[in-house]
Amino acid sequence: MYIENINSPADVKKLNIMQLNVLAEEMRHALLTRASRHGGHFGPNFGMVEAIIAMHYVFDSPKDKIVFDVSHQCYPHKMLTGRKDAYLYEEHYDDVSGYTNPNESEHDFFTVGHTSTSISLACGLAKARDLNGEDGNVIAVIGDGSLSGGEALEGLDFASELNSNMIIVANDNDMSIAENHGGLYANLKLLRETNGQAECNLFKAMNLDYIYVDKGNDIASLIEAFEKVKDTKKAVVVHINTLKGKGYAPAEQNKEKWHWHMPFDIATGESLFKDEEPDFSDASLEYLLKKMDEDKSVVAITAGTPTVMGFTADMRAKAGKQFVDVGIAEETAVALASGIAANGGKPVFGVYSSFIQRAYDQITQDVCINGNAVTFAVFAGSVYGMNDVTHLGLQDIPMLNSIPGLIYLAPVTKEDYIAMLDWSLTQNEYPVAIKVPGGRMVSTGTPVTKDFGKLDTYEITKKGSKVAILGLGTFYENAVKAADILKASHGIDATVINPYYISGIDADTLNELKKDHAVVATLEDGYLEGGFGAKIAAFYGSSDMKVLNFGIKKEFIDRYDVAEVLKDNHLTPEQIAEDIAATL
Amino acid sequence: MYIENINSPADVKKLNIMQLNVLAEEMRHALLTRASRHGGHFGPNFGMVEAIIAMHYVFDSPKDKIVFDVSHQCYPHKMLTGRKDAYLYEEHYDDVSGYTNPNESEHDFFTVGHTSTSISLACGLAKARDLNGEDGNVIAVIGDGSLSGGEALEGLDFASELNSNMIIVANDNDMSIAENHGGLYANLKLLRETNGQAECNLFKAMNLDYIYVDKGNDIASLIEAFEKVKDTKKAVVVHINTLKGKGYAPAEQNKEKWHWHMPFDIATGESLFKDEEPDFSDASLEYLLKKMDEDKSVVAITAGTPTVMGFTADMRAKAGKQFVDVGIAEETAVALASGIAANGGKPVFGVYSSFIQRAYDQITQDVCINGNAVTFAVFAGSVYGMNDVTHLGLQDIPMLNSIPGLIYLAPVTKEDYIAMLDWSLTQNEYPVAIKVPGGRMVSTGTPVTKDFGKLDTYEITKKGSKVAILGLGTFYENAVKAADILKASHGIDATVINPYYISGIDADTLNELKKDHAVVATLEDGYLEGGFGAKIAAFYGSSDMKVLNFGIKKEFIDRYDVAEVLKDNHLTPEQIAEDIAATL
Repeated sequence: MYIENINSPADVKKLNIMQLNVLAEEMRHALLTRASRHGGHFGPNFGMVEAIIAMHYVFDSPKDKIVFDVSHQCYPHKMLTGRKDAYLYEEHYDDVSGYTNPNESEHDFFTVGHTSTSISLACGLAKARDLNGEDGNVIAVIGDGSLSGGEALEGLDFASELNSNMIIVANDNDMSIAENHGGLYANLKLLRETNGQAECNLFKAMNLDYIYVDKGNDIASLIEAFEKVKDTKKAVVVHINTLKGKGYAPAEQNKEKWHWHMPFDIATGESLFKDEEPDFSDASLEYLLKKMDEDKSVVAITAGTPTVMGFTADMRAKAGKQFVDVGIAEETAVALASGIAANGGKPVFGVYSSFIQRAYDQITQDVCINGNAVTFAVFAGSVYGMNDVTHLGLQDIPMLNSIPGLIYLAPVTKEDYIAMLDWSLTQNEYPVAIKVPGGRMVSTGTPVTKDFGKLDTYEITKKGSKVAILGLGTFYENAVKAADILKASHGIDATVINPYYISGIDADTLNELKKDHAVVATLEDGYLEGGFGAKIAAFYGSSDMKVLNFGIKKEFIDRYDVAEVLKDNHLTPEQIAEDIAATL
Repeated sequence: MYIENINSPADVKKLNIMQLNVLAEEMRHALLTRASRHGGHFGPNFGMVEAIIAMHYVFDSPKDKIVFDVSHQCYPHKMLTGRKDAYLYEEHYDDVSGYTNPNESEHDFFTVGHTSTSISLACGLAKARDLNGEDGNVIAVIGDGSLSGGEALEGLDFASELNSNMIIVANDNDMSIAENHGGLYANLKLLRETNGQAECNLFKAMNLDYIYVDKGNDIASLIEAFEKVKDTKKAVVVHINTLKGKGYAPAEQNKEKWHWHMPFDIATGESLFKDEEPDFSDASLEYLLKKMDEDKSVVAITAGTPTVMGFTADMRAKAGKQFVDVGIAEETAVALASGIAANGGKPVFGVYSSFIQRAYDQITQDVCINGNAVTFAVFAGSVYGMNDVTHLGLQDIPMLNSIPGLIYLAPVTKEDYIAMLDWSLTQNEYPVAIKVPGGRMVSTGTPVTKDFGKLDTYEITKKGSKVAILGLGTFYENAVKAADILKASHGIDATVINPYYISGIDADTLNELKKDHAVVATLEDGYLEGGFGAKIAAFYGSSDMKVLNFGIKKEFIDRYDVAEVLKDNHLTPEQIAEDIAATL
């Protein structure tokens, strides 16, 4: 086997084309075996094996610098840059992250997980190179799905301004996570169909040089193309036509399903673990399909992640015009929602907590200044969400809380969530965001009748004295448990409160507590700084009430263990009870 | 005069071409008179008089809906939609805002002030129209300077997905605020030079229909073009070639200077008021030019607002390759800065507080997760900043504070600011943002020697007891004054602290205060919620310390009076002293 002897790109350069083709097969085999046992991004890597081999054959990393967009297609790159063991041997599978990581290798330049950043980041590397009078190539590798993102399009527009070496490899597999959306894909199709010869060319319209590689999974063709652009003195796009999931039939056939995959049986492609338990995606889908049927102005919006609200291909077909995928373009998703609301529609934008960050200004300016009744369903904003440092869901409370005019709600149960969605779609006054709880979905089976239009009304779910615990969203359950422990261990009959409103203060309830409570504890599923608890502390700042805030320390954490993080942040019910008792 | 009889677009439709031409001259005359006395956006409006007349002649607003990008070119639109008095009569000049405003008129659909939003917002209006089975045209009017923004490019990409009526008027005057930057402008130039016939066409590459109007200041040509696209069933771009500042020679000649202008003498074009006092822009420029000379890796970056750090055209020439204007593309500005820092350069991104919001995700992901030493100079983040609701500078403390890994500093004086910039450019460990103070620049003349690398070290500038006042940035001065009042009126010898660090807690200093202080007051120039004071309140939550937070209530305020806002928020030194005294 060749792959076992590849310790750096220099070893790739020693092989001839025939050997490189064998290497590609070996790599694909290793990727398949690893994916079947470990899970991970599948399609993006399988389509890029040959291109990455060719890049390392032609360019001299790390002097030549390759920047991967999203970087979920970097597994072959890692295999060729000293990290093959993490793909060949099961005991080493977890030695590497799923994204590029400068802490792992000098061949990685950024920790990246969000899309559409590669061109602008690479432009920065190139600019510094030029300022420092150095040479070498800078290469941005971007998948077509990422091209629709504003930052990528800005980068395409800016690249020629460098007047210097800058190579953009546009990996065109005609897919985003789901199918591509946007007018530029018609142009990519035209370019594929004309072997890159069509005069109308998005890249040329951005003042970039351009070459096309039809056989984007053929190492020889790719080497030829990369050699042609190596040491270019202008920004150039190498448009390569690849097959997403290449080499594994189920992935070639169902590209959306195999973008990322759980461990599976190689022979059948069936997942080894089935999660049949209904979750908040299912609940969203069920509610929205029903609502769409009742009201033709209800429209669900996604920015390239349709299944976050359960909209698989067949459900998208069912929703028809009432479902819009703008592609990876969160800014447009939010502005579109604002426009829909301004003209009498009822938009629901379902989005991961980590990605709503990409539309901060649009939420502020396009939506909230205008007071347009957009509903945001914010998923995985939780310590139980994604645990890669690039996909943390811990920031949304302070982030969204900093935007005036936005009502931010924290449901605890499925029924809370549905009642909030329903209220939000009924009213026309406020932009509303709903923080979908993390972890398992709790369902009581009893519809919630609370009127969420009576803003900032907390609910006392258990009346006690001395101590009050405000348990927000996901962590409400821990508030109940901590109260139980306080009762059992210290004989304290604590009040338990479900605040529901992240964005508001229930001054009446909080003032009322002053009468017979000495300590108020707050629990929130996210960074503490600038969050819900800090607001409560500020409210009580000039009173005698003692306030304890429980939440997560503001820092970037990577591939963390949930139990450890909870413990480190004193977030277990036992720790909470103990800390409260110590204050009394 | 015709303009005096225009009370709605219906009155425009009654005029013939000759009369419309006279109307245009009357409008331009009124705009010139008003601008000379009142100031405001100049060039954008002067170039668009004919196009806006033609639009209201052809389309039926408000059934047909016109959405203006940035909306600083909406003055002629306001004149034709029932608000002419605000442009004809000096006593009514302030009856209207400088941007579109749904509270003023049914012909305005959004309050808009940030760029690049119009296409996506208009797509939303169109989508709701289609869902509700209505008809009518939706028209987005976007200037070429705004096209480089990610949200606009996303919108261009998305528009064809509507499969429905959507008209994009691209106002091409070959200028942003300063000159245009980006590869797409080469394509616009090619299109102008080929009378729109060139095959390589950015808009067509986005799958949009396209027509070109060479005489973009000729009403008849414009009417013909708009009539051609009216009721189109597809998304179409009408590319019009206009002259920015048309009709006033100084503005035609110096487009950058006349993008926005203070009151001036019409005969000479000279400003009536001169502000000769040096400010933080001057200080930035002076420092950076010197530093650039010493270190070729120092690079100043702007996203279309070069003068925020003093880089007028001649200073840009002086800085040469060490100054980069990415055009209106804040996301790329931030990613570029991160790439530069990652490759050994020293980038300083100078940006208005209101616009840094546009790169929230890039600051988080591209910069802070990577720990790249980018310096952000955040201007006009102050109650003394811009007072239009779309340009408020009140949000940056909670916003930037929510991002892990970012050091956020609050200088008080020019010397603080320079010392912070200098420290930031020396170190390689942290992304650093500096909140440039609002109001007049205070200069002591004495260089600051504090080592800002010793993170989170507050400075006690006056040691007292009982009461400690933490005055952040702009409001430090008020802390000193409040302390003086407390001494004079109540005999209290308050401690005064300059915290310097917005993003950090100096636990030692704060704990030390517990010994002989009962009240800590915090002052900050921005929204209180999620801000600096709340953090201090949370720190002291379980102690006996009373904490009072002074800052601004989180809400959208428009064209406010600074003195009123300060008073309403208890931010005068007298009020602060009084509130503190009342707590004792």
